[in-house]
Amino acid sequence: MNVFVVGIGLIGGSFAKDIKRVRPNVRIFGVDTNERHLEEALSLSLIDEKADYSRLAEADFVIVSIPVDVMVRELPIILEAINEDTIVMDAGSTKSLICKTLENHPNRRNYLACHPIAGTEFSGPSAAIEGLYQGKTNIICEIEKTAFKQQERALELFQQLGMRIRYMNPEAHDKHIAYVSHLSHISSFMLGKTVIDKERNERDIFDMAGSGFESTVRLAKSSPAMWTPIFKQNRENVIETLGEYIGNLKLFKKMLEEDDYEGIYNEMCNTNRIKEILNGIPLNKQ
Amino acid sequence: MNVFVVGIGLIGGSFAKDIKRVRPNVRIFGVDTNERHLEEALSLSLIDEKADYSRLAEADFVIVSIPVDVMVRELPIILEAINEDTIVMDAGSTKSLICKTLENHPNRRNYLACHPIAGTEFSGPSAAIEGLYQGKTNIICEIEKTAFKQQERALELFQQLGMRIRYMNPEAHDKHIAYVSHLSHISSFMLGKTVIDKERNERDIFDMAGSGFESTVRLAKSSPAMWTPIFKQNRENVIETLGEYIGNLKLFKKMLEEDDYEGIYNEMCNTNRIKEILNGIPLNKQ
Repeated sequence: MNVFVVGIGLIGGSFAKDIKRVRPNVRIFGVDTNERHLEEALSLSLIDEKADYSRLAEADFVIVSIPVDVMVRELPIILEAINEDTIVMDAGSTKSLICKTLENHPNRRNYLACHPIAGTEFSGPSAAIEGLYQGKTNIICEIEKTAFKQQERALELFQQLGMRIRYMNPEAHDKHIAYVSHLSHISSFMLGKTVIDKERNERDIFDMAGSGFESTVRLAKSSPAMWTPIFKQNRENVIETLGEYIGNLKLFKKMLEEDDYEGIYNEMCNTNRIKEILNGIPLNKQ
Repeated sequence: MNVFVVGIGLIGGSFAKDIKRVRPNVRIFGVDTNERHLEEALSLSLIDEKADYSRLAEADFVIVSIPVDVMVRELPIILEAINEDTIVMDAGSTKSLICKTLENHPNRRNYLACHPIAGTEFSGPSAAIEGLYQGKTNIICEIEKTAFKQQERALELFQQLGMRIRYMNPEAHDKHIAYVSHLSHISSFMLGKTVIDKERNERDIFDMAGSGFESTVRLAKSSPAMWTPIFKQNRENVIETLGEYIGNLKLFKKMLEEDDYEGIYNEMCNTNRIKEILNGIPLNKQ
């Protein structure tokens, strides 16, 4: 089996690692505009050789893991270059614009719209980790638009990688993901900003930071090049969730200003049930 | 050595575990209004026996780890009941009101105002963990108001537990800690609330949540009984930091509304330097 990974970073590189494990005879081709990343991927044995689009007709499986703005530009070109049996899947954090862009593509049936809910705050080939997808959810959109044979082969691979599958339409995906992923990133980035802005004058502040602070700002280490286009493509949903979050923070501030400690206590008690909810989430073990 | 732990939960219980490790001949006495916690602490061997204030004169060291509102009420009583050589330390997340309450106490010199920056989102005796304080910062306020002999003995113990010491005045402590701890908790609680409120109508949403979401809402599992009085005692500082945080979130929302993606990208790049800052934070290994 020939697998082409377009964009060989954390996501694509982790797919390469796991596919090599479950399909020992696979040959992995790396495609990337970043020559340094390609060399790194080769030296880490994530890929067997470097390639470009001219060889895409040799591909059985193409995994596209690049920023979502580049995805919209590149996926139509990739779909042109494949053979009739190739499966092309993406790993984009947004789905509406990507699916819309490809809806009338002549090879739409070779494409499977995916969002594997997995990752870390790091990026690049050296961030790739084995077993990243074990037990994680892979959201597939518009499954009915993918040819049956391609569906079947992709699902077989996902099962081997240990992924749970959920089907969803692109609009529902983008709406929900704004709450459970995009908002967390903004919350984290702005928390980091608030504290860093303060720290300019008060150098000692970070001596006082503990693991709770680290946990809430962890996502502020994420790649701006990857996240800016995600926020752009999911603009409406992100604005809505952000508005609700700001509203809740204002409510908390108002309760504090009005010395309504019973209200504060009750809000926290109600939110404590996040414990049970989180118990259902498959997490990275690292 | 006789150590009394008043409030035998995560913080007090973890002190008990570590002190037993470094001082094998210690005898640990547990004092708690929660009889179930006392029994649990006994069965977990966190304490050697249950006790009450009537035996405080036997104490060499008293660790007070109870909610900060109860602290303000109980510390003066505890300081009355000790002997002239006893050291009383607290582990409260606020320092100004506690120090102010004790400033004219006849036994003020037996008291050491501490805030060990360590913990998890869990609570109760079963949450106690060995090595919690290893490599963590212990902030000590108004060191000059504690008798030299007591200072010396306390610092020796902290060193054995592997703690780094920072000295600070109570007002600076409360101001800085609002940024690096109290704000993280509110951010996390309100993020949890925003998503839970949505989830009432959309059950599937949590299938989509990954480790990033888990990380940002982890602190929303924290105890409301412990955190409500912290926010109350540090009201002014928390209101200020919360105002700045809301301002930054509004700024982000405005950039999104105005399609200022360059601005968004730059904000994220500037905040990425949290990476280097976080590298300096001693974290829980679990």
